Amino acid sequence: MSEATLSVSCPDRKGLVAALSKLLYDHGANILQSQQHVDRAESMFFERIQFDLAELDISRDQLEDLLRIECGRYEMRWRITYSDQPRRVAIFVSKIEHCFWDLLIRHRLGELPCEIALVISNHPKLEPVAKQFGVPYHVFTINAENKRAQEDAEAALLEQNGIDLIVLARYMQILSDTFIQRFPERIINIHHSFLPAFVGARPYHQAYQRGVKNIGATAHYATSQLDEGPILAQDVVACSHRDTVDDLVRKGRDVERVVLARGVRAHLEDRVLVHGRRTVVL
Amino acid sequence: MSEATLSVSCPDRKGLVAALSKLLYDHGANILQSQQHVDRAESMFFERIQFDLAELDISRDQLEDLLRIECGRYEMRWRITYSDQPRRVAIFVSKIEHCFWDLLIRHRLGELPCEIALVISNHPKLEPVAKQFGVPYHVFTINAENKRAQEDAEAALLEQNGIDLIVLARYMQILSDTFIQRFPERIINIHHSFLPAFVGARPYHQAYQRGVKNIGATAHYATSQLDEGPILAQDVVACSHRDTVDDLVRKGRDVERVVLARGVRAHLEDRVLVHGRRTVVL
Amino acid sequence: MSEATLSVSCPDRKGLVAALSKLLYDHGANILQSQQHVDRAESMFFERIQFDLAELDISRDQLEDLLRIECGRYEMRWRITYSDQPRRVAIFVSKIEHCFWDLLIRHRLGELPCEIALVISNHPKLEPVAKQFGVPYHVFTINAENKRAQEDAEAALLEQNGIDLIVLARYMQILSDTFIQRFPERIINIHHSFLPAFVGARPYHQAYQRGVKNIGATAHYATSQLDEGPILAQDVVACSHRDTVDDLVRKGRDVERVVLARGVRAHLEDRVLVHGRRTVVL
Amino acid sequence: MSEATLSVSCPDRKGLVAALSKLLYDHGANILQSQQHVDRAESMFFERIQFDLAELDISRDQLEDLLRIECGRYEMRWRITYSDQPRRVAIFVSKIEHCFWDLLIRHRLGELPCEIALVISNHPKLEPVAKQFGVPYHVFTINAENKRAQEDAEAALLEQNGIDLIVLARYMQILSDTFIQRFPERIINIHHSFLPAFVGARPYHQAYQRGVKNIGATAHYATSQLDEGPILAQDVVACSHRDTVDDLVRKGRDVERVVLARGVRAHLEDRVLVHGRRTVVL
Repeated sequence: MSEATLSVSCPDRKGLVAALSKLLYDHGANILQSQQHVDRAESMFFERIQFDLAELDISRDQLEDLLRIECGRYEMRWRITYSDQPRRVAIFVSKIEHCFWDLLIRHRLGELPCEIALVISNHPKLEPVAKQFGVPYHVFTINAENKRAQEDAEAALLEQNGIDLIVLARYMQILSDTFIQRFPERIINIHHSFLPAFVGARPYHQAYQRGVKNIGATAHYATSQLDEGPILAQDVVACSHRDTVDDLVRKGRDVERVVLARGVRAHLEDRVLVHGRRTVVL
Repeated sequence: MSEATLSVSCPDRKGLVAALSKLLYDHGANILQSQQHVDRAESMFFERIQFDLAELDISRDQLEDLLRIECGRYEMRWRITYSDQPRRVAIFVSKIEHCFWDLLIRHRLGELPCEIALVISNHPKLEPVAKQFGVPYHVFTINAENKRAQEDAEAALLEQNGIDLIVLARYMQILSDTFIQRFPERIINIHHSFLPAFVGARPYHQAYQRGVKNIGATAHYATSQLDEGPILAQDVVACSHRDTVDDLVRKGRDVERVVLARGVRAHLEDRVLVHGRRTVVL
Repeated sequence: MSEATLSVSCPDRKGLVAALSKLLYDHGANILQSQQHVDRAESMFFERIQFDLAELDISRDQLEDLLRIECGRYEMRWRITYSDQPRRVAIFVSKIEHCFWDLLIRHRLGELPCEIALVISNHPKLEPVAKQFGVPYHVFTINAENKRAQEDAEAALLEQNGIDLIVLARYMQILSDTFIQRFPERIINIHHSFLPAFVGARPYHQAYQRGVKNIGATAHYATSQLDEGPILAQDVVACSHRDTVDDLVRKGRDVERVVLARGVRAHLEDRVLVHGRRTVVL
Repeated sequence: MSEATLSVSCPDRKGLVAALSKLLYDHGANILQSQQHVDRAESMFFERIQFDLAELDISRDQLEDLLRIECGRYEMRWRITYSDQPRRVAIFVSKIEHCFWDLLIRHRLGELPCEIALVISNHPKLEPVAKQFGVPYHVFTINAENKRAQEDAEAALLEQNGIDLIVLARYMQILSDTFIQRFPERIINIHHSFLPAFVGARPYHQAYQRGVKNIGATAHYATSQLDEGPILAQDVVACSHRDTVDDLVRKGRDVERVVLARGVRAHLEDRVLVHGRRTVVL
């Protein structure tokens, strides 16, 4: 059964819910779920509408034309996706493997509605893992001299493969601004701390030094400001004086896995709308 | 600023969101928030719409007449409440005091949008607490002989005082079916276990005996089936072999407080729709 | 660096901590960590002592002889394990794979101090997964007629391979009492509910029907009483009316993985002492 | 029944557990509970021993003399407290009341083993609350000119009253270094964020701006470095785009209450040993 998901955001005003639901109703779309949010402080409106295409009485192109007109009237940012056109995802990894395994297994179990099209790595180590799951693995070794050229080659590969989403699964290489700006709101990173606590390198060591009683992980969109992008998902786990740095790393893996998967899944289900530095996850 | 909240549930069909949002829009109501849910398994539709009354171009009575007609067309169960007509709440207590204090303090801090109209107890112990907060405290001692008569007297008092909601804040007296059926979906109880684990008496003792690693609490609507009513809120807290029964009781108090308050608040904000044994908390 | 872990339990009396620490100290053992618990209600004493063997001035056999004498004086149940003699583990699986992957990957990442010696299954489906990790996979198809014979064959295989611990990683086949009694406190099962809620089959369906607001998982030792064995670990995750049974199954997988791994790890680190129906996890 | 709690920390070496347990055993003390921790990274030893005084065959003074000698041999920091000499606590408050109520009610319910001797505030607002619980309330209005003098007066009052512990229950007035240094590891503060995230003022506003998906609270010892003292307890609660700053403040109150109480209770039960910037909570 084919479904579509429409996501919109715009300055709030009267009649937005009525306008969109009427448009869909008038053309035979049955709304399956909708979530709507008004940020009163900023007077912004956000809505996600998931609807059945079975009895749609116009073509998808015609529907998109109508949406373009209607959404234009309200200065809406909007996008539409179709369940029969799954998003194509590239995973970036280095040598740390738990998040990589986790995404591959969740995909295999049907938890992530997407195609995992390819893997990019700065190291050959995890090629055998990718192979087991039948996913092409491309190594781009990065150093100070070749970084720009290699990133260009990566971007070309991503474009050739029609990649919609990049997931940095503990990818241990800072991406350049140029690269990041090519994929706005389309790169998800997992940071191994409860941001904004412990930005930068070695957050578990920092957490140990500070003696915190919980550690966490944060899935966020990558932006030019390192560790500052809009947050998709976060969670924490209890720790204590009994935990060494190694224990924190081990416990942290469980949170990282769950938080990254939650963020990626929310993105793939079109639940995420970005407004400034914040996300609305409907 | 006056607001209204409309809550509806009915068998799902096309056009429900459009119909309600159009009706409101046509009469000047500005939708502030709406939440909608479709239970696909049971093909049921649920919606909560919170809207501004400032520019409503008809009277509340006229609006309700229109809703009666429109909701009738779709076999909707519906209700509407107004923020300027706060619900009137009665708290039932016995000798255990932590939930009672908690509700009184949350109300004082503005967390519970209601009036705490009166307290009913089967024991005089907590009268001084009620007094401190200026809430009338009525003692109805219950025994096997007088139970029916006392419950009738309680019901009469509740009706005289226009009570909308009864909160059993660790009230240690089983209410008769007759009493409960007078207030359907209007009595909230807190059970000191993670239902359906440990139904019945002394759940912390049961939890200790079973050696569980978490204990919990459950806020639910009271029904004729003890501990079986629709669940509003639940939560748990970790425990271990180090916890004696007394420790479980102490830790449990924290969960009970939070869970009961969460359930009462959801009810008062008209977020709760009951369908069969389950709730939809929008 | 070789270490040993001594675990003891006995009726409480004065001088137990002193007696054991003196014995170890007198023979050159350096205590690295110790945890001790007194259950005052049952007047029972539990202790776990992890110590360095580097400067032990007697042989391991001699140490065990001394412990036998000393522990005998206090009616202690005791056991000792050595870090250079890792436990040998057998995993039992059927067709549900997430817990199986999880144990294999955690082992690969060094989280589980053991050898995964073999896999037993009632179905060939997951053989390729075992193969990837280089673990022998044995299929024993079970039906009403052959159950006793097949279980005997399984037990023989386990004994030949010197298996110390059996982990039922969502093994969908009830083990006979005879089989279970061969491995007391040496079979860990993961039940996909927050026991004692939803014992028996299809707990996520039961949870959905009851409308609970959290679902959970329980790792416990298998005993003759199904779902009644001593609990090693439990945890829960929030859910809501938005979750279908399929969503509960998906969310449940994350809890099951973490809870099973926590239980297995606690067992392998010799943190678990059983007393009646309850565990002390030091 | 009188009990004592001995807490020690020192550089790790062989025989520490044996030495202390033997000393106590030799004089008739029955160890009820003990917790011990070795920080291998820093080679530090920590122990807490709770023991029964009923059959102690020497006086408390003699016991303390023996401990002074024995602990001296190992360069131990040590302290001993007695259950029949409850600690005397002063609560500092301003106008925010939820933590204040919470401590008073928990004390009333027997959760905090101490005497609440007095309240100090920079504002008269909460005097009626203190009065209800029979606790003296002292107002010291603070401004730039009188701060030093007022703090001196406060310190004098605290000393006259034999105060062992100061709890800053959302006290909205920065204490001077001089004041803080008078009470090392004897002032507990609650910070309304998950430190080190959102240090400084208005953490809920900061959290809202950053769009985090959890908010938290931190109980820590006050030190000269604001928000940098050793952490006693922390916890978080989930939040989302649906939460306004006011909602975060409301949700935060629940975490603050629980976290502050957990920290205070751990301190009063002598579970906390400080080492550098970190705590060991046994």
